[in-house]
Amino acid sequence: MPHIDLNNDQPGIVGLFQYRPETGRPMSELAEVLLRGPGTLGRGERELIAAHVSALNECAFCAGSHSAFAAAQLDGGAELVEQASEDPATAPLPAKMKALLAIAGAVTRGGREVTPELVKEARLHGATDPEIHDTVLIAAVFCMFNRYVDGLDTVAPADPAAYTAMAGPIVAHGYLSVLPSPDREGRTG
Amino acid sequence: MPHIDLNNDQPGIVGLFQYRPETGRPMSELAEVLLRGPGTLGRGERELIAAHVSALNECAFCAGSHSAFAAAQLDGGAELVEQASEDPATAPLPAKMKALLAIAGAVTRGGREVTPELVKEARLHGATDPEIHDTVLIAAVFCMFNRYVDGLDTVAPADPAAYTAMAGPIVAHGYLSVLPSPDREGRTG
Repeated sequence: MPHIDLNNDQPGIVGLFQYRPETGRPMSELAEVLLRGPGTLGRGERELIAAHVSALNECAFCAGSHSAFAAAQLDGGAELVEQASEDPATAPLPAKMKALLAIAGAVTRGGREVTPELVKEARLHGATDPEIHDTVLIAAVFCMFNRYVDGLDTVAPADPAAYTAMAGPIVAHGYLSVLPSPDREGRTG
Repeated sequence: MPHIDLNNDQPGIVGLFQYRPETGRPMSELAEVLLRGPGTLGRGERELIAAHVSALNECAFCAGSHSAFAAAQLDGGAELVEQASEDPATAPLPAKMKALLAIAGAVTRGGREVTPELVKEARLHGATDPEIHDTVLIAAVFCMFNRYVDGLDTVAPADPAAYTAMAGPIVAHGYLSVLPSPDREGRTG
């Protein structure tokens, strides 16, 4: 049971966005532009970074949902995502993605853990400055979401099917669709 | 020197928002509503939570700036903020603020560190559900900002006067004023 009364029975971040849409709106907009907006990293690759950070932070709701969103948008599907979010170094991923996931793992431990060597390794495998920027920011953003979701002890479904079911609407309609509808209607422009 | 070329010489988060205003805008809006929007915690109290988390994460830019913003909006000024952001338990603060800062410290370590006992203690001293919610979210948000700022190794001024100078505009005009102006003009409505 959550630490506070959310006045709704929605799980994870969904319940929090319903409880406080004033802060939910900019957080949804941030997720939308960062994970789905224009960029040279694929949407599945960006979701994989989110899933990896959430797995490291042991946030069941975020790891479950973003693993499902990554699996729905990556060729390797759920098997690749499970392997890569747990241990990117040994997963069958391109060297650039492995290097970016190593940067994301460093961010999860702390900002100053990102060394020039990690950045150099990513560049060596073709990562651009905007890709390095977005990797650091995605990892930082999920260190926020993970702490928000678990810091208020929100409900995380135990059944993996619950997360798979969320993937369709997110892939089709994006993160603004998570907002309660009056706010969503006024703000999606 | 930052890990990537930001194409500007602005310090900390300011340089990052100039580099990538698409993500800077929702982050500024989140900071504005959470730290300065309607709420029963004072703006100075909310900035103190931000300063404490940033001090725990050893993020020089965020700790310096939000300590200055807290000092400008709290009766105890810089002396209280320095004492409270380093060690809230021994600082001359109301019991409610000490309990909320303890929750913020737990969030900084990880979401699941927020125990029912910490929440109970805050309630015992009069904290409401929205105040507990906002405390957890402010702490989570600064775990993001701290990692973003340090993960890209942005410049942090060494002179405390640089942070004091930022406080006036933030207190007067808020966080949307940090955005580069074309984006700011189009988005402050």
